[in-house]
Amino acid sequence: MTLDLSQCLGVLRENDNFLVLSHDHPDGDTLGSAFALMYILKKLGKKCRFLCADPVPKSFSYIFDEVKNDDIVPEFVIAVDVADEKLLGKLFDEYKGKTDLCIDHHASNTHYAKYELLEDRAAACEIIYNLALCADIKIDKYLGECIYTGISTDTGCFKYQNTTSSVLRIAAELYDVGIDYKKINKLMFETVSKNLLALELLARETLEYRFDGRCALITLTRDMYEKSGSGEDECYGITALPRQIEGVLIGAVIKEKQDGSYGISVRTGTEADASEICARLGGGGHKGAAGCRLYCSLEETKERFFDSAKITLDGIKK
Amino acid sequence: MTLDLSQCLGVLRENDNFLVLSHDHPDGDTLGSAFALMYILKKLGKKCRFLCADPVPKSFSYIFDEVKNDDIVPEFVIAVDVADEKLLGKLFDEYKGKTDLCIDHHASNTHYAKYELLEDRAAACEIIYNLALCADIKIDKYLGECIYTGISTDTGCFKYQNTTSSVLRIAAELYDVGIDYKKINKLMFETVSKNLLALELLARETLEYRFDGRCALITLTRDMYEKSGSGEDECYGITALPRQIEGVLIGAVIKEKQDGSYGISVRTGTEADASEICARLGGGGHKGAAGCRLYCSLEETKERFFDSAKITLDGIKK
Repeated sequence: MTLDLSQCLGVLRENDNFLVLSHDHPDGDTLGSAFALMYILKKLGKKCRFLCADPVPKSFSYIFDEVKNDDIVPEFVIAVDVADEKLLGKLFDEYKGKTDLCIDHHASNTHYAKYELLEDRAAACEIIYNLALCADIKIDKYLGECIYTGISTDTGCFKYQNTTSSVLRIAAELYDVGIDYKKINKLMFETVSKNLLALELLARETLEYRFDGRCALITLTRDMYEKSGSGEDECYGITALPRQIEGVLIGAVIKEKQDGSYGISVRTGTEADASEICARLGGGGHKGAAGCRLYCSLEETKERFFDSAKITLDGIKK
Repeated sequence: MTLDLSQCLGVLRENDNFLVLSHDHPDGDTLGSAFALMYILKKLGKKCRFLCADPVPKSFSYIFDEVKNDDIVPEFVIAVDVADEKLLGKLFDEYKGKTDLCIDHHASNTHYAKYELLEDRAAACEIIYNLALCADIKIDKYLGECIYTGISTDTGCFKYQNTTSSVLRIAAELYDVGIDYKKINKLMFETVSKNLLALELLARETLEYRFDGRCALITLTRDMYEKSGSGEDECYGITALPRQIEGVLIGAVIKEKQDGSYGISVRTGTEADASEICARLGGGGHKGAAGCRLYCSLEETKERFFDSAKITLDGIKK
């Protein structure tokens, strides 16, 4: 059942003892919206708990450390920023089919929840912000920092294509209520660990071009994780890099997995279809971002990727 | 003589045949404000020309290609986003002492102009935006793109510490007048040339830490520009990198200049004052970003920088 903001608020008011779920490998938007929602629920006089399949990264402690889980037996399950139940990760088996309310901004949402508050917004936190306004709850520093964390991280600090004038105005409002945006921006967008820097250096040294520079590939091996002290969870920026290079239509990063197989993350601009390239190799995803996994040698992985990329490039006029 | 917005507008209305100067190695803010100002001058029925010591980078063609230089003998010289006459570069000798009006947002402005419109804003383009409002000039797509280019590049797309709710609201307004922010964000923040990538790799290899990792330095030599095919004008991201490293309070990049001197760009977090570090070496700038130039060997340049950084670090509690 699809809800609007005030209907959603009605459902929250009618129930109690909420369990709020974030998606696995939690990011700023799923955490920001979960904790902003918990704050709102408490203001409504409700009790709630937070649950996530994976640990919350240390950098989000300014959100996470503030909240207290109530000692309750959950009666009503809410998933925030979770497009598909499978993204509950290790919690999937336990909570499959049990989500009462889903609050989400993904067009690809699989409609797994009893109630849905779905809006096509830049971030789930943008929906939560409007929910707070609808409930007449004052946006204070803590609530503002939760919401800002979600809208800033999901828009790459207002540089990604999903940025809107609406999120820019919300950010301005949050600045004015006194959020520590300097701290958050520095933590989220201006901090790189020495280990990640070392990994980036090793990664950049592997960069290779094919097909007149229209395809670029970086390779990350377990040896490089070990040498640098950095891990796969940190390397988001590396995955984005090859596609950002001028003239590159298809960018890819091959990552050696613990079992010796190779994952390929493919990113494309508007011209090429990443999901098509990965589908030929048994994978899938979106038009602009897709992936697949191959169980063969690194050299064979590279060649199979380049072969598939070539088919796509041959279909594009130079 | 210090002017406010409406006094500045009065001066512009009283004069004609303007020469608008940008600082050397022009960036998004000096170009955005120069061309936004030219647009405003033309709307006021005035004639004007643009001049800069260095070529305008290709990526700014959406600003630069739109404007027509009038066939005039300049009578009134305006410098925009030029904190110090010396930043006129090769034009310094010709225009020294000849600036009639300076529109600038740098606290370190050296007060070299006859008239001054100086405000402590995130970008010179923020002042120009307010000037357009004051003149009752409609912000259309072109004017909006000039202004957006300046405020977005000077704030690192709204992630730097100088970002304010005011620039976020201006950005929202500009989104709503239909600027192509997707194009601008991609060009400015999501595109890297192959040559720059090669330069970044060479630059990262020179990274050195001092004072328990609280100070980090990268060195760019002319040899590296030649090897990579990239130039100083492109290396904005490299300048920001050292300060972004976890634990680093003072980040700096030394750049070898054509005349064999060394420029130092210093970036700091909230703890250290970059302008203080550079002032000791004969330079200046903002608290978070400053620069200076030394005419000695690379080794001596490094040591003099580290000496000045150490004085500042000694004043900060660990």
